[in-house]
Amino acid sequence: MSNPVLVEILRGEHVESAHRGAIAVCDGAGKLLVEIGDVSQPVFPRSAVKAIQALPLVESGAADAFGFGDRELALACASHKGESAHVDLAASMLARIGLDETALECGAHWPLAHEATVVLARSGRSPSQLHNNCSGKHSGFLCACRHMNLAHQGYVSFEHPYQATIREVMKNVTGAPHDADNSATDGCSIPTYAIPISSLALGFARLATGQGLSTARAKAAKRLVAACMAEPFLVSGSQAADLALMQAAPGSIFVKTGAEGVYCAALPELGLGIALKCDDGAGRAAEAMVAAVLAMLLKSDEALSERLAVLARPAVPSRKGEPVGRVQPTEAISGQLT
Amino acid sequence: MSNPVLVEILRGEHVESAHRGAIAVCDGAGKLLVEIGDVSQPVFPRSAVKAIQALPLVESGAADAFGFGDRELALACASHKGESAHVDLAASMLARIGLDETALECGAHWPLAHEATVVLARSGRSPSQLHNNCSGKHSGFLCACRHMNLAHQGYVSFEHPYQATIREVMKNVTGAPHDADNSATDGCSIPTYAIPISSLALGFARLATGQGLSTARAKAAKRLVAACMAEPFLVSGSQAADLALMQAAPGSIFVKTGAEGVYCAALPELGLGIALKCDDGAGRAAEAMVAAVLAMLLKSDEALSERLAVLARPAVPSRKGEPVGRVQPTEAISGQLT
Repeated sequence: MSNPVLVEILRGEHVESAHRGAIAVCDGAGKLLVEIGDVSQPVFPRSAVKAIQALPLVESGAADAFGFGDRELALACASHKGESAHVDLAASMLARIGLDETALECGAHWPLAHEATVVLARSGRSPSQLHNNCSGKHSGFLCACRHMNLAHQGYVSFEHPYQATIREVMKNVTGAPHDADNSATDGCSIPTYAIPISSLALGFARLATGQGLSTARAKAAKRLVAACMAEPFLVSGSQAADLALMQAAPGSIFVKTGAEGVYCAALPELGLGIALKCDDGAGRAAEAMVAAVLAMLLKSDEALSERLAVLARPAVPSRKGEPVGRVQPTEAISGQLT
Repeated sequence: MSNPVLVEILRGEHVESAHRGAIAVCDGAGKLLVEIGDVSQPVFPRSAVKAIQALPLVESGAADAFGFGDRELALACASHKGESAHVDLAASMLARIGLDETALECGAHWPLAHEATVVLARSGRSPSQLHNNCSGKHSGFLCACRHMNLAHQGYVSFEHPYQATIREVMKNVTGAPHDADNSATDGCSIPTYAIPISSLALGFARLATGQGLSTARAKAAKRLVAACMAEPFLVSGSQAADLALMQAAPGSIFVKTGAEGVYCAALPELGLGIALKCDDGAGRAAEAMVAAVLAMLLKSDEALSERLAVLARPAVPSRKGEPVGRVQPTEAISGQLT
């Protein structure tokens, strides 16, 4: 059994590479509306669930205590590209609790935005942990720990009480188990838990609708999703797929990428949650898959659907920038819901 | 029908992503000794066939006329990382025919070696076409054009007589058709032709053995393969998989990567050619596949086979550099030839 090919990479008119995957679309009541491939397959959502992981920051009252608005909440849900706006805002969040970059436990890496790497290198500096694409999430964790009177050292470990809090929230929102058996360590050193794609889609449908959540949690979810849609650059960065997708329909689409080919999305107006995984972990394919699914789900708005379909089919350029191929979602996606 | 999973990516002890592919191993007489997946599938070899594309440089007498030794021939077969040794040598090859970087038609891009990008940015400069990973191949093309009295302008186009020469050589060595119907444009703007994986393996078995080739071509092939094995850094670059694999058994293993998950290899002592393609185009998986196949084929040398098996199973690190997973070839490879 293998998942279907969902995205092909064409060079000229020939298929050069192909990406398989699975996609689930769910409503707030838990009804699966679209099921492509094996959606019961457990996947590590990685960074795709940062908005769920940020719920305790809001629910605990920490976000209000520290005066966080859309910008800070968006950054707490971000996989950013290490651009100056991201780095400076993360530093300012830490400054509000008297901490700095050294309190982060995510590790340092060069900015994901190539231009930011060039600027940083030209300035003679090296990247700090603030450039880590997860620094906003970690800064949010540290602020919540401070507000909850939890010692922040070791906040990334499975045993730390804040990670236990996140586990409980993830279990509640997705309905899937989160424990040592299905956990591993994410790139930024926090635990990540392999759960079914269908559970992820349900979790995002609940974020979109509030259904199945306590009043306080539903309110926090609404606030976080709205913050991300209001500040899509802070959630992602220059030339990010997430930025282009959220800008295609401001306030109507929330998408969040995760490493290794994961995407989750919420459509508040339609009350839908979406989750997908490209089997081989390719980001280029996951981006095309989520754009193609959104184009299909939103086809009642023809202009929007066409903008999304264009985003699902980017050109493959030569080193001179000339198009020599293209990314192409297959009918396994577009043939759904016809 | 789908190709088998050949490489898994583990996070903790869970499979996070999986890569499918096909592998052919062939001897100089054209006998397929290993056949995993669909080896009749046409694939674009991309940069994996640079050593075949460099044959006219040697056969025409150009290499001797310009005094090229192992270093220049290795660079003519290279997908290098834009490090200073690569850039300077490409410039010196062009200088021998009175040309410079502006004659190249490959396009510019930042060095593939991150450290080289940082050094270049710190110096306040931007990349030139000499930093293009294909600049050595293109410099070799220009030298051969000069020696053969061909106008060099437009040397990358399908219609240029030098590309016609390369087509004829590719046809002869691989036995597969090369024409407009199966062509597309490579990242460096020259034509690339989709041919069966088994034909690629045969081509590399012929490079390894000289069987099926004219005496002059067999001699040129032997010289190019020896040059690459003598100068593996120039063929690749710092931390390249090709460098590590060729250094594992100096003079016994020739490997060459191609974009979108292709690898070709020649084992002169065993008289074997190897070709493989990862379906989804992932380099990390293709590197593990070729290392695993080499470990299997060379298992009579236990120490070497173990070094190769280690290269086939690199750790997946966190951003702090701690291992949080690993790359793992499957039994679909190791179970062959038991």
